[in-house]
This record gives sequence, structure tokens and C-alpha cells, in this order.
Amino acid sequence: MTNTIPSPDLIARFAAIVGDRNALTDQAAIAPYLVESRGLYTGNTPLVLKPGSVDEVSQILKLASETGAAIVPQGGNTGHVAGQIPRTGAADIVLSLERLNRIRDIDPVGNVIVADAGCILADIQIAAEAHDRLFPLSLGSEGSCRIGGNLSTNAGGTAVLAYGNMRQLCLGLEVVLPTGEIWDGLRRLKKDNTGYDLRDLFIGAEGTLGVITGAVLKLFPKPLGHQVAFAGLKSVADALALFDKASSLCGPALTGFELMPRLGVEFTAKHIPGVRDPLDTAHAWYALIDISTSDSAETAEHMMSELLETEISGGLVENAVVAANDAQRKSLWHMRESMSPAQRPEGGSIKHDVSVPVSSIPAFMAQADAAVMAAIPGARICAFGHMGDGNIHYNISQPIGADRQAFLSRWREVNAIVHGIVMKYNGSISAEHGIGQLKRDELAEVRSRIEIDLMQRIKQAFDPAGIMNPDKVLKA
Amino acid sequence: MTNTIPSPDLIARFAAIVGDRNALTDQAAIAPYLVESRGLYTGNTPLVLKPGSVDEVSQILKLASETGAAIVPQGGNTGHVAGQIPRTGAADIVLSLERLNRIRDIDPVGNVIVADAGCILADIQIAAEAHDRLFPLSLGSEGSCRIGGNLSTNAGGTAVLAYGNMRQLCLGLEVVLPTGEIWDGLRRLKKDNTGYDLRDLFIGAEGTLGVITGAVLKLFPKPLGHQVAFAGLKSVADALALFDKASSLCGPALTGFELMPRLGVEFTAKHIPGVRDPLDTAHAWYALIDISTSDSAETAEHMMSELLETEISGGLVENAVVAANDAQRKSLWHMRESMSPAQRPEGGSIKHDVSVPVSSIPAFMAQADAAVMAAIPGARICAFGHMGDGNIHYNISQPIGADRQAFLSRWREVNAIVHGIVMKYNGSISAEHGIGQLKRDELAEVRSRIEIDLMQRIKQAFDPAGIMNPDKVLKA
Repeated sequence: MTNTIPSPDLIARFAAIVGDRNALTDQAAIAPYLVESRGLYTGNTPLVLKPGSVDEVSQILKLASETGAAIVPQGGNTGHVAGQIPRTGAADIVLSLERLNRIRDIDPVGNVIVADAGCILADIQIAAEAHDRLFPLSLGSEGSCRIGGNLSTNAGGTAVLAYGNMRQLCLGLEVVLPTGEIWDGLRRLKKDNTGYDLRDLFIGAEGTLGVITGAVLKLFPKPLGHQVAFAGLKSVADALALFDKASSLCGPALTGFELMPRLGVEFTAKHIPGVRDPLDTAHAWYALIDISTSDSAETAEHMMSELLETEISGGLVENAVVAANDAQRKSLWHMRESMSPAQRPEGGSIKHDVSVPVSSIPAFMAQADAAVMAAIPGARICAFGHMGDGNIHYNISQPIGADRQAFLSRWREVNAIVHGIVMKYNGSISAEHGIGQLKRDELAEVRSRIEIDLMQRIKQAFDPAGIMNPDKVLKA
Repeated sequence: MTNTIPSPDLIARFAAIVGDRNALTDQAAIAPYLVESRGLYTGNTPLVLKPGSVDEVSQILKLASETGAAIVPQGGNTGHVAGQIPRTGAADIVLSLERLNRIRDIDPVGNVIVADAGCILADIQIAAEAHDRLFPLSLGSEGSCRIGGNLSTNAGGTAVLAYGNMRQLCLGLEVVLPTGEIWDGLRRLKKDNTGYDLRDLFIGAEGTLGVITGAVLKLFPKPLGHQVAFAGLKSVADALALFDKASSLCGPALTGFELMPRLGVEFTAKHIPGVRDPLDTAHAWYALIDISTSDSAETAEHMMSELLETEISGGLVENAVVAANDAQRKSLWHMRESMSPAQRPEGGSIKHDVSVPVSSIPAFMAQADAAVMAAIPGARICAFGHMGDGNIHYNISQPIGADRQAFLSRWREVNAIVHGIVMKYNGSISAEHGIGQLKRDELAEVRSRIEIDLMQRIKQAFDPAGIMNPDKVLKA
């Protein structure tokens, strides 16, 4: 399906909805909306619209449906798969949610916050904190990403193990449909079995079925106890065994279990200012263990010490250190979060964001390592990530002394190798980041024909005019 | 849309797929498949099919799609809204999943179990237990309901507060589509952002979009600590305040928080053998508090005693008793579970299964009580339920000495009064039980036109021939 290229007259009609000040046509002003966060994609557009109300969003989509103009919703423009970037060579109109950034209501007893889709994630966290509550979604980009984008990509981050993805943190949605009609699904209910689950259909749809304009999000009591440890281990299999022990002991108090390889720790110690290896012994693998408890600080302390004492004396953990205070806890997490940037000075890095069943991680890693090393002798595999979620950022730094461009030119080839093994374990080629433009064609290859067909039917049923973020997730 | 009335020839073709032994045409054999659990609905059918494999389910649906015959999937036939019952006066074919009852795999390290849709819920619980794991879904009918039905109705029960509904307990599905095509979505992944959320669309769809034939379900570590208390309170508002305190103190260790009125406790003490009021003082309201902890028995004990000591000395809790052992814990839960049967000897009871935002429960109850008492002076309101989930079984026993039939004849009128107040709080007219036939017409009244329209579009996209459980949830 081909979308209309908006004429100057049509552009004026769109601009009139939001007012000239909120309709950008100057290419210098538009430029920041066109480049994806890692610079892999640059799109183009004749118009960026910044509506100031849900009604304006509705008018924009109504006009788009009537005229066939394509609309690309954009939040904080932090996505990694270019779902928020207009197509190159088309004339998609960007609809920025940035002015819809009001917190509508907060109910600490009901443990919900109701907010516009354009609210910045960190502002939601702060509003919750002000009422002695926790909003647990936490991401590297939380200072600039917006909750509409978090919802549209079903964002993950560092607290998924205990609290779930954005999908699990949302009770209700308000969505403007492609026709401009508004679906008010802003319910605050924990239980509601009244028909098809529309909410979860819009969550993770990357703006291809409608524009999320508001949401009811869950809040949680703020934990009183918090413990973070860094443990040296012999193998990935031992890391899995330790995760199993930690999970059984702590239950939902286990808020994080992250895996890191020796190489990653060396990279961070070498390249990231202020980071040093917290252990005086070297280990093949490391786990960062995060425990938080609601009843008291002592419960978390007791859990962590019991876990480590038992598993050190039993030989599963080779060595470990427990952070003594908040500064040390932040420092351990900072090392983990520096795994990706620490790879940059080491040359080209071919990246994957995959998941497999948790119990398959050791086998997946062994097979992937062997296949990658066979294809690229000397490759330096730096696979790390959210082990408790089965989510590994399987990154590969170039061999020492190799040509950066020659190495990076093998990106697709290496993707095919790694994703082939992921699919053997019935895994996912995108655990966190979504599909967007980057993985759209690959999605159609790894999923069954019937699965893609069902998605196409939903797209057709919700957006028959094909105006909502076309060519993202699915080929139009 | 009208479905085909199967001719003898077509019935023979369906029967040939499963073999004569598994195709019931004798009306005496068929009878148990036709009556809904509470006896409100009785349907009719010329044929009950009991396929023994996913392939047979596929062949049945393919033939149904080609011929326009209607198919009604049925699990344990325990549903309360007649979603599983064939229409009266049509000729729907019942497809029983009872022979698809194999546990396919269990992975205690990965914390998943993979099972046929026809497995009985209790068998899943037992299989988990055998591997020292917990499958938390727990319902009154767990000895006979089947997980395909639990999934299709997004079942709730007594552990939703900590573990969520069936939706939150499912990682992957296998579904036979109306065309007979099989969607293999049996993934074991905690994180997977690859396109639209088909899984959650089939969950809660009450068999109107396809037939769930298999599922990957989550398992959990078995808690070591378990404490149950019964607390006397002045008011619903105090119950809400206590829930807030318990939730903040215990976090995810608070596994149950149930509300009961004085009248309900009196009814159970009077009518249920073995039940007595565990407190020697009378209170307007009661809370059953259930805490379970993974690290140790002591943590649960410590949480419960801290909660009760603080709130008794602070005056929020008037009196309380903590169960000393498993038998006493079961006994307290037995009283709670007897709330509904204990109303039977008191005459007619008009029932509701509603939810509102948790913080709105006191206001909802006050308004509903006033409206009901104005409509039916002397009515005896016995509203109880899963307060922590915002889910109240708002039941009303007839006035003493009133005529039972005259009282029950006002069911729809009273529903309209109560549901009207529920909708003021943006609540749900079916928190747990689903829509089926019972609440189908009312759903269309309480939800917006656009919401019903979106559901109709999904139905049309997935089942264009209209063969899957027609007239359930939505009018065909």
C-alpha cells in the first residue's frame, strides 16, 4: 500500500490542528526527529506535529485516514530498531507526543499513576517516589524516553525479573485509533475479564495499530532492604545453578541476576573511568545479584549472607563481595551498565539482543561461541545480560588487530549464525528492543507463516487505510 | 451469521476424524456436556467430539470451516457464564478437550511446565509439587476444571494478589485456528518483543478465536513460610487501610487479603458444619490475611506478628487470631470459601462478580449498599471477596420471610443498580468469570461502541466463517 505524499495544502491542514508553533517544517528543526539513537537509520519527513491534547491527536489521525498520509508516532526517540523513525524516501509525518506530558492522577493507596503518554519515564519514577511508592521500570535512557514509547515497545530494563516488562506494569490505556476515534481503556482494575485483551495488543505494537495517548501504570511499595553482590564463578552452568538457588531462596525478592564474562569485566576496568574489578581474584564468569525486601533491611541482608555463605562453602561461588552501602551498590551496577560502552574502544562490535529459555542459556552460549569462533577466529565474545530473564546481549568484539570495517561487514552473516542457534532453542531475536525497521524482514523469516499472517490480519482490521507507522514490524 | 445444521452425513464425517468411540451422538451420553455448572443454561447438540490429538482438533476445525458447522470447545465444564455450553436451539458441535491431558514436559530449573489443554488443574499442581515447585493457580473447581478453560477464561482464584491471573502464569500457547491451521506459540521465554501479542489475545477469548490445545505455564519456588490470620475490623475503610499497611510491609509476600462481613461469618457459623467464629468478639468486618515467604518460615511469622502487633496497638485491628498450624490455616480459608454456600439456606441470593479500583472499594460498597437497601428494604447484603484485587462478590440474600421467587425475579433490576455503580467507578461487571452467554448483552451496554467494534473486528479477522463458539462474548 502506498501512502499519500502530503501536498503543501494538506501540510497546512495538519499544521492548523496543532497551530504553527507546534508544526515543524523547517528541516533544521526537524533533524533531531529523524535520526535513530545509534545512528543506524536516518529518515525524512516534511512535517513534525506536536499535538497538545488527545483531541488534537484524534484530529490528526482522522485527517490522515481521510487522506492516506502516513503517521509515525514518536516518544523520546531512544528506540534501537528505528520504529520511531520515518521511512527514508517516503513522506511520513512525525507525530511527537512530547507535549502530552502531564501526570493526570496518582493514587498511592490504589497503587496507580495515570499519565499522558509523553511523560518522561524518570518523571514517573520521581512522582511515585514523592508518594513513597516505586515505579520499577528502569532503563539506561530513562531520563529521556517517554512512557508511550516504553509501552509501544514493551520496554524491559533492569527490574524485569521481579516486576515484569512494561506490559506487566500497565493496567489501562487510552489509544487514538487510526480513524481518530478514541478508545478509553484507562481502567485501574487488577481483574477484568470482559472480552478480548485490547490493552496487550496495543502494548508492543510499536505504534502500528494506533497512538497510545495515556496509561494507568502500577505502583509498588518502596522496598526497605537492598543488597547487591558481585560473585565470581567458574562457568555459565554454575551461574545458572546459582540463579536457581537464589531464586528458590529469595522468591520475588530476587530483583536482579545479571551475567558478565571475564572479558567484559576487563574491558570496563580498562576503559571506564572509576570502574575497577571489585574482586582480587580472576574468574571466568560473574553474577551481579540484587535482592530487595519490603519488610526490613535485615531480611535482604539475611538472604544475601545465607545465599553467599552456603554457596561459597559449597564451592559454587568462587569468591564474592557484597556492597556495603548505596554508593557501592551503584558502583556494582555501574560496572554492569558499562559492559556495552566498554566494548567501543576495542573496535567493531556485532550485537544481538536475544532470549532463550533460562535453563538453555549454558547450551546456547556454548553452541553460539563455537559457531562464532569457527566463523571468525580470534573474535572476542562479550556476552552478558539479564540471565534471570533468559535475555543475553550476545556481543562480539573484533579480533585484535582486525580491520574494523571488514569485521562489521559480516554483521548480517554473524546475526544469521547466532539467530539460527537462538531459533533452535525456540528463542527470540528481539528480547527487549522490538522489531521496528531493523528486524522486520528477519521477523518474517524466523516466525511461521501463520503467525505473520495473524499479525497482518490484526493490522488490516485496525488500520485498513495503512496510515499507522507503515512498514514497521510488518511489511505494508 | 447462521451456522450449518450438520446433516447425518456431515456428523459421520466429523465422527470419522476421532473414531466412533470418541464421537458421542447418544443423548444420554451427551447430557453432561450440556448443562452449565450452576444450572442456569442448558444447551443442545447432535454431537460431542473427543479428539485424541492436536492433529484431530485441526481436522475438526478445518471441516467445520469448510462446512460452516459451529464448534464449542469445552474443558472441565465448570464455567459460570455458559461460554462452554452449546446454544439452545442451534446445532453446535461440542469439542471436548478431555482426552488431550498429557503433561508434555516439566523443567524445574527453567520453572516451566508444558501441558495439553485438557490437563486438569490439580494435576498440574501435583506435577509441580513433585518437582518441588508451585503452580499457584488455585480455584474451588481445581479438581475438575482443565487448563484450556482456565486459559480461555483467564481464571483468577485465591492467589492472584501475589501471582496474577492465568494470563500472568502463561508463557506460550499452541492454538488451532478456525481454519485448522496450528499456531505454535509454545515459547518458554520471559522476554520476547517480536510483534503483536497473540498469546494474550487467545487468553480470555473464551474459545471464540481458536482452540487452545497446549500451553507453557510458569512454575515458582515453593514458599517455606506460611501464615494466615483472621482480623476483626470496624469498617471497609479500615480494611482498606489494613490492606495498605500489609501490602507495604509484605510486598509480594502478601499472597491473600480477603474481606468478609459479619453477616457472612454468622451464615458460615450457622450453616457450615465445623465452621465457628474464631474470635470471641463480634466485628462489623473481617480480613483474612495470607502471607507466604520463600526464604524461611520465620520471615512469614515475623511479618505477621509485626503487622498485627502494630495495627492492634494502633487501633486499626480490633482483634485477631493467627493460625498456629496447617489445619488451622485450612480452617480459616475454609470459612472464607464457605461464604457462598452458606448463603443458600438463607433463601434466594442475587449475585455479582465485580471489580473496582482497590481504593474505591469503601465508596463503592457504601453507595451500592444504600441503593440496594432503598430498592429492597430488609435485603441482607453479604459482600465478600478478594479485596486486594478489588474483586468483590457482591451477593444479596433475600429479606427474612420474603418470597424467594419474587426476590429472585428482581435479579436483572438489582444487577442494573449494582453494575451502574460499578461503572461509575470505571469497574468491571465480570472480574473473574468472563462473559460467555450470561453477560454478553450487558457487555455491549457497558462498554463503548468503539471497544465492542474493535473486538468484532478481531473476531472477523480470526474467524471469518463464524464457526468458533458463536454468540459467546459477542453477538454473531
